[in-house]
Amino acid sequence: MQRLVMSKMARSLSRLLTGCQRFASPPSVYAHLCHSSTSLPFRSSFVRTMGALPFSFLPKPRDFSLPNSAWSAEMTRLYNFYNNQCEVENESGEKQKGPWRRLPSYNRTLKYATGGAYLSKFIQSKNRLFTRSIKTAGAAFEYVMFINKEEQRCVCIFQAGHLLEGPPGHVHGGAIATMIDSVTGALAAFMSGAVMTANLTINYRSPIPLGSTVLLESSVDNMEGRKTFVSCKVTSTDSSKLHTEATALFLSIKVGHLLGM
Amino acid sequence: MQRLVMSKMARSLSRLLTGCQRFASPPSVYAHLCHSSTSLPFRSSFVRTMGALPFSFLPKPRDFSLPNSAWSAEMTRLYNFYNNQCEVENESGEKQKGPWRRLPSYNRTLKYATGGAYLSKFIQSKNRLFTRSIKTAGAAFEYVMFINKEEQRCVCIFQAGHLLEGPPGHVHGGAIATMIDSVTGALAAFMSGAVMTANLTINYRSPIPLGSTVLLESSVDNMEGRKTFVSCKVTSTDSSKLHTEATALFLSIKVGHLLGM
Repeated sequence: MQRLVMSKMARSLSRLLTGCQRFASPPSVYAHLCHSSTSLPFRSSFVRTMGALPFSFLPKPRDFSLPNSAWSAEMTRLYNFYNNQCEVENESGEKQKGPWRRLPSYNRTLKYATGGAYLSKFIQSKNRLFTRSIKTAGAAFEYVMFINKEEQRCVCIFQAGHLLEGPPGHVHGGAIATMIDSVTGALAAFMSGAVMTANLTINYRSPIPLGSTVLLESSVDNMEGRKTFVSCKVTSTDSSKLHTEATALFLSIKVGHLLGM
Repeated sequence: MQRLVMSKMARSLSRLLTGCQRFASPPSVYAHLCHSSTSLPFRSSFVRTMGALPFSFLPKPRDFSLPNSAWSAEMTRLYNFYNNQCEVENESGEKQKGPWRRLPSYNRTLKYATGGAYLSKFIQSKNRLFTRSIKTAGAAFEYVMFINKEEQRCVCIFQAGHLLEGPPGHVHGGAIATMIDSVTGALAAFMSGAVMTANLTINYRSPIPLGSTVLLESSVDNMEGRKTFVSCKVTSTDSSKLHTEATALFLSIKVGHLLGM
Protein backbone atom coordinates (compact mmCIF):
# COMPACT_ATOMS: atom_id res chain seq x y z
CA MET A 1 0.00 0.00 0.00
CA GLN A 2 2.78 2.38 0.96
CA ARG A 3 4.51 1.52 -2.31
CA LEU A 4 1.33 2.34 -4.25
CA VAL A 5 0.96 5.70 -2.53
CA MET A 6 4.61 6.45 -3.15
CA SER A 7 4.21 5.57 -6.81
CA LYS A 8 1.24 7.93 -7.17
CA MET A 9 3.19 10.64 -5.35
CA ALA A 10 6.12 10.12 -7.65
CA ARG A 11 4.00 10.43 -10.81
CA SER A 12 2.23 13.54 -9.50
CA LEU A 13 5.47 15.16 -8.46
CA SER A 14 7.02 14.27 -11.78
CA ARG A 15 4.17 16.04 -13.60
CA LEU A 16 4.46 19.05 -11.30
CA LEU A 17 8.16 19.25 -12.01
CA THR A 18 7.82 19.14 -15.78
CA GLY A 19 8.27 22.90 -15.97
CA CYS A 20 11.65 22.61 -14.26
CA GLN A 21 13.42 21.15 -17.23
CA ARG A 22 13.03 24.27 -19.31
CA PHE A 23 14.83 26.34 -16.72
CA ALA A 24 18.28 26.07 -15.35
CA SER A 25 18.14 25.60 -11.62
CA PRO A 26 20.51 24.67 -8.79
CA PRO A 27 22.32 21.47 -9.67
CA SER A 28 21.22 18.04 -8.56
CA VAL A 29 17.62 19.10 -8.17
CA TYR A 30 16.29 15.89 -9.65
CA ALA A 31 18.97 13.68 -8.23
CA HIS A 32 18.03 14.66 -4.74
CA LEU A 33 14.32 14.13 -5.20
CA CYS A 34 14.83 10.38 -5.04
CA HIS A 35 15.14 10.86 -1.31
CA SER A 36 11.96 12.86 -1.02
CA SER A 37 10.00 9.95 0.46
CA THR A 38 11.54 10.71 3.82
CA SER A 39 12.10 14.42 3.62
CA LEU A 40 9.13 15.80 1.72
CA PRO A 41 5.90 15.26 3.67
CA PHE A 42 3.66 14.72 0.62
CA ARG A 43 0.34 12.98 1.01
CA SER A 44 -1.22 11.45 -2.07
CA SER A 45 -4.58 13.16 -1.47
CA PHE A 46 -2.81 16.51 -1.22
CA VAL A 47 -0.93 15.92 -4.43
CA ARG A 48 -4.13 14.91 -6.24
CA THR A 49 -5.78 18.13 -5.05
CA MET A 50 -2.82 20.15 -6.23
CA GLY A 51 -3.06 18.52 -9.64
CA ALA A 52 -6.51 20.02 -10.13
CA LEU A 53 -5.55 23.61 -9.34
CA PRO A 54 -5.25 26.16 -12.18
CA PHE A 55 -1.56 26.94 -11.66
CA SER A 56 -1.51 29.44 -14.50
CA PHE A 57 -3.63 31.80 -12.37
CA LEU A 58 -1.42 31.59 -9.29
CA PRO A 59 0.97 34.50 -8.65
CA LYS A 60 4.55 34.01 -9.79
CA PRO A 61 7.21 33.73 -7.09
CA ARG A 62 9.54 36.68 -6.53
CA ASP A 63 12.40 36.73 -9.00
CA PHE A 64 15.60 37.58 -7.08
CA SER A 65 17.66 38.12 -10.21
CA LEU A 66 16.06 41.50 -10.93
CA PRO A 67 17.91 44.71 -9.99
CA ASN A 68 17.52 46.15 -6.48
CA SER A 69 18.81 49.22 -4.66
CA ALA A 70 21.82 47.34 -3.22
CA TRP A 71 23.31 46.61 -6.63
CA SER A 72 26.49 48.48 -7.47
CA ALA A 73 26.68 50.72 -10.52
CA GLU A 74 28.98 48.14 -12.14
CA MET A 75 26.54 45.29 -11.49
CA THR A 76 23.67 47.33 -12.92
CA ARG A 77 25.75 48.29 -15.98
CA LEU A 78 26.59 44.66 -16.71
CA TYR A 79 22.99 43.58 -16.10
CA ASN A 80 21.81 46.12 -18.66
CA PHE A 81 24.52 45.05 -21.11
CA TYR A 82 23.34 41.42 -21.16
CA ASN A 83 19.65 42.13 -20.60
CA ASN A 84 19.60 44.40 -23.65
CA GLN A 85 20.71 41.39 -25.69
CA CYS A 86 17.81 39.21 -24.53
CA GLU A 87 15.47 40.95 -26.96
CA VAL A 88 16.74 42.64 -30.10
CA GLU A 89 15.23 44.39 -33.10
CA ASN A 90 15.54 42.85 -36.56
CA GLU A 91 15.98 44.82 -39.81
CA SER A 92 12.23 45.49 -39.99
CA GLY A 93 12.29 47.02 -36.52
CA GLU A 94 10.42 44.07 -35.00
CA LYS A 95 11.46 42.73 -31.64
CA GLN A 96 12.70 39.18 -31.46
CA LYS A 97 14.62 36.92 -29.09
CA GLY A 98 18.28 37.81 -28.76
CA PRO A 99 21.28 35.56 -28.13
CA TRP A 100 21.05 35.81 -24.33
CA ARG A 101 18.37 34.76 -21.91
CA ARG A 102 18.08 35.91 -18.29
CA LEU A 103 17.43 33.09 -15.86
CA PRO A 104 14.88 33.75 -13.11
CA SER A 105 16.02 33.02 -9.56
CA TYR A 106 13.70 31.95 -6.73
CA ASN A 107 14.33 31.28 -3.04
CA ARG A 108 13.48 27.59 -3.34
CA THR A 109 14.32 25.06 -6.05
CA LEU A 110 10.75 23.81 -5.76
CA LYS A 111 9.47 27.11 -7.16
CA TYR A 112 10.92 26.30 -10.58
CA ALA A 113 8.24 23.62 -10.92
CA THR A 114 4.78 24.31 -12.31
CA GLY A 115 2.77 25.16 -9.19
CA GLY A 116 5.91 25.04 -7.10
CA ALA A 117 5.33 28.45 -5.51
CA TYR A 118 2.06 27.13 -4.10
CA LEU A 119 3.53 23.76 -3.11
CA SER A 120 6.34 25.59 -1.32
CA LYS A 121 3.86 26.92 1.24
CA PHE A 122 3.10 23.37 2.35
CA ILE A 123 6.30 21.42 1.84
CA GLN A 124 8.92 22.24 4.42
CA SER A 125 7.85 25.85 4.09
CA LYS A 126 10.69 27.27 6.22
CA ASN A 127 13.36 25.95 3.84
CA ARG A 128 15.20 28.46 1.70
CA LEU A 129 17.65 28.11 -1.17
CA PHE A 130 21.13 28.56 0.31
CA THR A 131 22.05 31.43 -2.01
CA ARG A 132 18.75 33.27 -1.44
CA SER A 133 18.18 32.60 2.24
CA ILE A 134 19.14 36.05 3.54
CA LYS A 135 16.45 38.66 2.95
CA THR A 136 18.50 41.85 3.37
CA ALA A 137 19.37 43.13 -0.09
CA GLY A 138 23.11 43.27 -0.70
CA ALA A 139 24.08 41.45 2.52
CA ALA A 140 25.01 38.11 0.96
CA PHE A 141 24.69 36.77 -2.61
CA GLU A 142 23.48 39.24 -5.24
CA TYR A 143 23.64 37.65 -8.65
CA VAL A 144 21.99 37.27 -12.01
CA MET A 145 22.70 34.68 -14.70
CA PHE A 146 22.38 34.96 -18.48
CA ILE A 147 22.62 31.97 -20.82
CA ASN A 148 23.61 31.90 -24.48
CA LYS A 149 22.31 28.56 -25.72
CA GLU A 150 23.96 28.70 -29.14
CA GLU A 151 27.37 29.34 -27.65
CA GLN A 152 26.70 26.98 -24.70
CA ARG A 153 27.81 29.70 -22.31
CA CYS A 154 26.55 31.19 -19.07
CA VAL A 155 27.57 34.54 -17.60
CA CYS A 156 26.84 35.37 -13.98
CA ILE A 157 27.26 38.83 -12.50
CA PHE A 158 27.95 38.40 -8.77
CA GLN A 159 28.20 41.00 -6.03
CA ALA A 160 29.48 39.63 -2.71
CA GLY A 161 27.92 41.04 0.47
CA HIS A 162 29.39 41.51 3.94
CA LEU A 163 27.93 38.27 5.31
CA LEU A 164 30.13 36.15 3.02
CA GLU A 165 33.38 36.90 4.83
CA GLY A 166 36.19 34.39 5.09
CA PRO A 167 39.56 36.10 5.52
CA PRO A 168 39.04 39.66 6.85
CA GLY A 169 37.45 41.77 4.13
CA HIS A 170 37.37 38.97 1.56
CA VAL A 171 34.96 36.36 0.28
CA HIS A 172 34.98 32.90 1.92
CA GLY A 173 36.23 30.09 -0.34
CA GLY A 174 32.99 28.23 0.34
CA ALA A 175 30.91 31.15 -0.92
CA ILE A 176 32.94 31.16 -4.14
CA ALA A 177 32.44 27.39 -4.46
CA THR A 178 28.72 27.92 -3.92
CA MET A 179 28.49 30.37 -6.79
CA ILE A 180 30.55 28.10 -9.07
CA ASP A 181 28.29 25.15 -8.22
CA SER A 182 25.21 27.26 -8.95
CA VAL A 183 26.45 28.69 -12.27
CA THR A 184 27.94 25.50 -13.77
CA GLY A 185 24.89 23.54 -12.60
CA ALA A 186 22.52 26.04 -14.18
CA LEU A 187 24.32 25.81 -17.53
CA ALA A 188 24.49 22.00 -17.44
CA ALA A 189 20.79 21.75 -16.58
CA PHE A 190 19.91 24.18 -19.36
CA MET A 191 21.86 22.19 -21.95
CA SER A 192 21.26 18.61 -20.77
CA GLY A 193 18.00 18.68 -18.81
CA ALA A 194 17.91 16.82 -15.51
CA VAL A 195 21.44 16.51 -14.12
CA MET A 196 23.25 15.91 -10.87
CA THR A 197 26.61 17.31 -9.82
CA ALA A 198 29.26 14.60 -9.69
CA ASN A 199 32.45 16.62 -9.30
CA LEU A 200 33.71 20.12 -8.61
CA THR A 201 37.41 20.94 -8.95
CA ILE A 202 38.32 24.46 -7.90
CA ASN A 203 41.63 26.29 -8.09
CA TYR A 204 41.82 29.47 -6.05
CA ARG A 205 44.18 32.02 -7.61
CA SER A 206 43.42 35.39 -6.03
CA PRO A 207 41.03 36.47 -3.23
CA ILE A 208 37.87 38.48 -3.92
CA PRO A 209 37.31 41.63 -1.79
CA LEU A 210 33.88 41.80 -0.13
CA GLY A 211 31.54 44.24 -1.83
CA SER A 212 33.14 43.84 -5.22
CA THR A 213 31.34 42.74 -8.36
CA VAL A 214 32.89 39.86 -10.32
CA LEU A 215 32.03 37.83 -13.39
CA LEU A 216 31.59 34.06 -13.49
CA GLU A 217 31.92 32.88 -17.09
CA SER A 218 31.03 29.26 -17.68
CA SER A 219 31.01 27.16 -20.84
CA VAL A 220 30.28 23.58 -21.84
CA ASP A 221 33.54 21.78 -22.66
CA ASN A 222 32.12 18.45 -23.73
CA MET A 223 29.02 16.28 -23.70
CA GLU A 224 29.54 12.50 -23.81
CA GLY A 225 26.61 10.24 -23.17
CA ARG A 226 25.30 11.04 -19.71
CA LYS A 227 28.22 13.33 -18.92
CA THR A 228 28.30 17.12 -19.28
CA PHE A 229 31.68 18.74 -18.65
CA VAL A 230 31.58 22.43 -17.75
CA SER A 231 34.31 24.91 -16.89
CA CYS A 232 34.12 28.23 -15.10
CA LYS A 233 36.35 31.26 -14.49
CA VAL A 234 35.79 33.94 -11.89
CA THR A 235 37.37 37.23 -12.91
CA SER A 236 37.17 40.94 -12.31
CA THR A 237 34.47 42.57 -14.43
CA ASP A 238 37.04 43.78 -16.98
CA SER A 239 38.47 40.20 -17.10
CA SER A 240 41.95 41.48 -16.25
CA LYS A 241 42.24 39.65 -12.90
CA LEU A 242 41.67 35.91 -12.52
CA HIS A 243 40.26 35.02 -9.10
CA THR A 244 39.27 31.36 -9.45
CA GLU A 245 39.19 28.58 -12.05
CA ALA A 246 37.02 25.48 -11.89
CA THR A 247 35.75 22.47 -13.77
CA ALA A 248 32.60 20.53 -13.02
CA LEU A 249 31.08 17.24 -14.13
CA PHE A 250 27.34 16.65 -14.24
CA LEU A 251 25.51 13.39 -14.88
CA SER A 252 22.22 13.27 -16.75
CA ILE A 253 19.50 11.40 -14.93
CA LYS A 254 15.89 10.38 -15.51
CA VAL A 255 13.40 12.17 -13.30
CA GLY A 256 11.18 9.12 -13.13
CA HIS A 257 14.03 6.90 -12.05
CA LEU A 258 14.91 9.35 -9.30
CA LEU A 259 11.35 9.40 -8.06
CA GLY A 260 11.35 5.63 -7.82
CA MET A 261 9.10 5.08 -10.85
CA MET B 1 55.43 58.17 3.14
CA GLN B 2 52.51 55.95 2.28
CA ARG B 3 54.92 53.03 2.08
CA LEU B 4 56.25 53.83 5.56
CA VAL B 5 52.74 53.99 7.06
CA MET B 6 51.83 50.73 5.35
CA SER B 7 54.95 49.10 6.72
CA LYS B 8 54.09 50.20 10.27
CA MET B 9 50.54 48.95 9.79
CA ALA B 10 51.81 45.63 8.55
CA ARG B 11 54.11 45.14 11.54
CA SER B 12 51.38 46.11 14.00
CA LEU B 13 48.84 43.87 12.34
CA SER B 14 51.35 41.05 12.23
CA ARG B 15 51.87 41.37 15.99
CA LEU B 16 48.12 41.48 16.59
CA LEU B 17 47.67 38.34 14.55
CA THR B 18 50.33 36.35 16.36
CA GLY B 19 47.67 34.57 18.38
CA CYS B 20 46.05 33.29 15.20
CA GLN B 21 48.70 30.75 14.42
CA ARG B 22 47.92 28.64 17.44
CA PHE B 23 44.33 28.16 16.34
CA ALA B 24 42.93 26.63 13.24
CA SER B 25 40.78 29.14 11.45
CA PRO B 26 39.09 29.49 8.08
CA PRO B 27 41.63 28.84 5.34
CA SER B 28 43.52 31.55 3.55
CA VAL B 29 43.26 33.94 6.46
CA TYR B 30 46.80 35.16 6.08
CA ALA B 31 46.87 34.93 2.34
CA HIS B 32 44.01 37.32 2.04
CA LEU B 33 45.45 39.86 4.42
CA CYS B 34 47.91 40.95 1.77
CA HIS B 35 45.01 42.82 0.24
CA SER B 36 44.07 44.54 3.45
CA SER B 37 45.57 47.86 2.43
CA THR B 38 42.52 48.55 0.34
CA SER B 39 39.82 46.71 2.20
CA LEU B 40 40.68 47.15 5.87
CA PRO B 41 40.48 50.82 6.89
CA PHE B 42 43.42 50.73 9.32
CA ARG B 43 45.13 53.93 10.27
CA SER B 44 48.60 53.73 11.71
CA SER B 45 47.69 55.87 14.74
CA PHE B 46 44.74 53.61 15.47
CA VAL B 47 46.89 50.51 15.27
CA ARG B 48 49.49 52.05 17.60
CA THR B 49 46.73 52.82 20.13
CA MET B 50 45.43 49.28 19.88
CA GLY B 51 48.90 47.96 20.54
CA ALA B 52 48.88 49.59 23.97
CA LEU B 53 45.56 48.09 25.13
CA PRO B 54 45.57 45.28 27.73
CA PHE B 55 43.92 42.67 25.50
CA SER B 56 44.02 40.02 28.20
CA PHE B 57 41.36 41.97 30.14
CA LEU B 58 38.98 42.32 27.19
CA PRO B 59 35.99 39.95 27.03
CA LYS B 60 36.39 36.87 24.83
CA PRO B 61 34.22 36.72 21.72
CA ARG B 62 31.26 34.32 21.69
CA ASP B 63 32.30 30.77 20.86
CA PHE B 64 29.75 29.34 18.40
CA SER B 65 31.04 25.79 18.69
CA LEU B 66 29.45 25.29 22.11
CA PRO B 67 26.14 23.38 22.38
CA ASN B 68 22.84 25.25 22.00
CA SER B 69 19.16 24.32 22.18
CA ALA B 70 18.92 23.71 18.41
CA TRP B 71 21.43 20.87 18.46
CA SER B 72 20.01 17.42 17.79
CA ALA B 73 20.43 14.63 20.34
CA GLU B 74 22.89 12.94 17.96
CA MET B 75 24.97 16.11 17.60
CA THR B 76 25.07 16.55 21.37
CA ARG B 77 26.02 12.90 21.88
CA LEU B 78 28.92 13.17 19.44
CA TYR B 79 30.01 16.49 20.94
CA ASN B 80 30.17 14.87 24.38
CA PHE B 81 32.02 11.86 22.96
CA TYR B 82 34.87 13.98 21.60
CA ASN B 83 34.75 16.69 24.25
CA ASN B 84 35.21 14.08 26.97
CA GLN B 85 38.49 13.15 25.30
CA CYS B 86 39.85 16.69 25.42
CA GLU B 87 40.73 16.31 29.07
CA VAL B 88 41.39 12.90 30.63
CA GLU B 89 42.47 11.54 34.00
CA ASN B 90 45.82 9.81 34.36
CA GLU B 91 46.51 6.84 36.66
CA SER B 92 46.92 9.17 39.66
CA GLY B 93 43.49 10.65 39.05
CA GLU B 94 44.95 13.95 37.84
CA LYS B 95 43.43 15.70 34.88
CA GLN B 96 45.59 16.22 31.84
CA LYS B 97 45.23 17.07 28.16
CA GLY B 98 43.59 14.33 26.12
CA PRO B 99 44.16 13.38 22.47
CA TRP B 100 41.47 15.73 21.13
CA ARG B 101 41.14 19.48 21.25
CA ARG B 102 37.96 21.43 20.58
CA LEU B 103 38.45 24.38 18.25
CA PRO B 104 36.68 27.62 19.18
CA SER B 105 34.57 29.22 16.44
CA TYR B 106 33.90 32.95 16.13
CA ASN B 107 31.78 34.95 13.72
CA ARG B 108 34.80 36.71 12.20
CA THR B 109 38.23 35.41 11.29
CA LEU B 110 39.66 38.59 12.81
CA LYS B 111 38.52 37.46 16.26
CA TYR B 112 41.11 34.67 16.29
CA ALA B 113 43.78 37.34 16.60
CA THR B 114 44.92 38.72 19.94
CA GLY B 115 42.65 41.71 20.47
CA GLY B 116 40.67 40.77 17.38
CA ALA B 117 37.30 40.92 19.13
CA TYR B 118 37.98 44.57 19.93
CA LEU B 119 39.41 45.32 16.49
CA SER B 120 36.34 43.76 14.93
CA LYS B 121 34.18 46.57 16.28
CA PHE B 122 36.12 49.08 14.20
CA ILE B 123 37.20 47.18 11.10
CA GLN B 124 34.33 46.57 8.70
CA SER B 125 32.19 45.83 11.74
CA LYS B 126 29.18 44.59 9.75
CA ASN B 127 31.15 41.73 8.20
CA ARG B 128 30.41 38.21 9.39
CA LEU B 129 32.11 34.87 8.78
CA PHE B 130 30.08 33.13 6.07
CA THR B 131 29.39 30.02 8.18
CA ARG B 132 28.37 32.05 11.26
CA SER B 133 26.50 34.92 9.64
CA ILE B 134 22.97 33.76 10.50
CA LYS B 135 22.06 34.39 14.14
CA THR B 136 19.09 32.03 14.49
CA ALA B 137 20.33 28.85 16.18
CA GLY B 138 19.86 25.76 14.02
CA ALA B 139 18.81 27.68 10.89
CA ALA B 140 22.05 27.30 8.92
CA PHE B 141 25.46 25.87 9.89
CA GLU B 142 25.71 24.24 13.31
CA TYR B 143 29.11 22.65 13.71
CA VAL B 144 31.97 21.94 16.05
CA MET B 145 35.48 20.75 15.18
CA PHE B 146 37.88 18.62 17.20
CA ILE B 147 41.52 18.12 16.24
CA ASN B 148 43.83 15.24 17.12
CA LYS B 149 47.31 16.63 16.53
CA GLU B 150 49.18 13.35 16.98
CA GLU B 151 47.02 11.57 14.43
CA GLN B 152 46.86 14.68 12.19
CA ARG B 153 43.09 14.34 12.04
CA CYS B 154 40.10 16.65 12.38
CA VAL B 155 36.53 15.58 13.08
CA CYS B 156 33.65 17.99 12.50
CA ILE B 157 30.09 17.33 13.65
CA PHE B 158 27.78 19.25 11.33
CA GLN B 159 24.02 19.77 11.54
CA ALA B 160 22.51 21.34 8.41
CA GLY B 161 19.69 23.85 8.94
CA HIS B 162 16.72 24.72 6.74
CA LEU B 163 18.41 27.77 5.17
CA LEU B 164 21.00 25.60 3.41
CA GLU B 165 18.59 24.09 0.89
CA GLY B 166 19.63 23.13 -2.62
CA PRO B 167 17.42 20.39 -4.03
CA PRO B 168 14.11 20.26 -2.11
CA GLY B 169 14.76 18.99 1.40
CA HIS B 170 18.49 18.52 0.89
CA VAL B 171 21.72 20.44 1.47
CA HIS B 172 23.07 22.66 -1.33
CA GLY B 173 26.31 21.41 -2.87
CA GLY B 174 27.86 24.80 -2.12
CA ALA B 175 27.06 24.48 1.58
CA ILE B 176 28.80 21.08 1.63
CA ALA B 177 31.80 22.61 -0.18
CA THR B 178 31.82 25.40 2.41
CA MET B 179 32.05 22.94 5.28
CA ILE B 180 34.76 20.94 3.51
CA ASP B 181 36.76 24.12 2.90
CA SER B 182 36.38 25.11 6.54
CA VAL B 183 37.33 21.72 8.01
CA THR B 184 40.29 20.91 5.75
CA GLY B 185 41.53 24.48 6.11
CA ALA B 186 41.30 24.32 9.89
CA LEU B 187 43.35 21.11 9.98
CA ALA B 188 45.96 22.41 7.54
CA ALA B 189 46.33 25.66 9.50
CA PHE B 190 46.64 23.73 12.77
CA MET B 191 49.39 21.52 11.38
CA SER B 192 51.28 23.94 9.13
CA GLY B 193 50.58 27.41 10.52
CA ALA B 194 49.69 30.13 8.04
CA VAL B 195 48.28 28.59 4.86
CA MET B 196 46.12 29.46 1.89
CA THR B 197 43.76 27.19 0.00
CA ALA B 198 45.07 26.38 -3.46
CA ASN B 199 42.70 23.59 -4.57
CA LEU B 200 39.49 21.85 -3.60
CA THR B 201 38.39 18.71 -5.45
CA ILE B 202 34.99 17.44 -4.39
CA ASN B 203 33.12 14.29 -5.44
CA TYR B 204 29.46 14.23 -4.53
CA ARG B 205 28.20 10.67 -3.90
CA SER B 206 24.91 10.95 -2.05
CA PRO B 207 22.74 13.94 -1.00
CA ILE B 208 22.42 15.06 2.62
CA PRO B 209 18.87 15.59 3.96
CA LEU B 210 18.33 18.96 5.65
CA GLY B 211 18.20 18.72 9.43
CA SER B 212 20.45 15.69 9.58
CA THR B 213 23.71 15.49 11.48
CA VAL B 214 26.75 14.26 9.56
CA LEU B 215 30.44 13.76 10.25
CA LEU B 216 33.29 15.37 8.32
CA GLU B 217 36.48 13.40 8.95
CA SER B 218 39.64 14.99 7.62
CA SER B 219 43.25 13.87 7.73
CA VAL B 220 46.62 15.08 6.51
CA ASP B 221 47.76 12.93 3.59
CA ASN B 222 51.15 14.50 3.02
CA MET B 223 53.31 17.51 3.77
CA GLU B 224 55.96 18.42 1.20
CA GLY B 225 57.75 21.73 1.54
CA ARG B 226 55.12 24.45 1.40
CA LYS B 227 52.35 22.02 0.46
CA THR B 228 49.90 20.38 2.86
CA PHE B 229 47.63 17.76 1.28
CA VAL B 230 44.43 17.05 3.18
CA SER B 231 41.53 14.70 2.45
CA CYS B 232 37.99 14.72 3.81
CA LYS B 233 34.98 12.41 3.87
CA VAL B 234 31.43 13.40 4.73
CA THR B 235 29.45 10.46 6.09
CA SER B 236 26.43 9.61 8.19
CA THR B 237 27.26 9.67 11.90
CA ASP B 238 27.59 5.87 12.01
CA SER B 239 29.92 6.08 8.96
CA SER B 240 27.72 3.65 7.00
CA LYS B 241 26.74 6.13 4.27
CA LEU B 242 29.26 8.11 2.24
CA HIS B 243 27.88 11.49 1.18
CA THR B 244 30.91 13.32 -0.21
CA GLU B 245 34.66 12.82 -0.69
CA ALA B 246 37.19 15.58 -1.17
CA THR B 247 40.86 16.45 -1.32
CA ALA B 248 42.39 19.84 -0.69
CA LEU B 249 45.77 21.45 -1.18
CA PHE B 250 47.03 24.26 1.02
CA LEU B 251 50.16 26.37 0.58
CA SER B 252 52.17 27.62 3.54
CA ILE B 253 52.83 31.33 3.46
CA LYS B 254 54.69 33.91 5.51
CA VAL B 255 52.47 36.41 7.27
CA GLY B 256 55.02 39.17 6.92
CA HIS B 257 55.33 38.61 3.20
CA LEU B 258 51.57 38.76 2.84
CA LEU B 259 51.44 42.01 4.73
CA GLY B 260 53.96 43.54 2.37
CA MET B 261 56.89 43.48 4.82
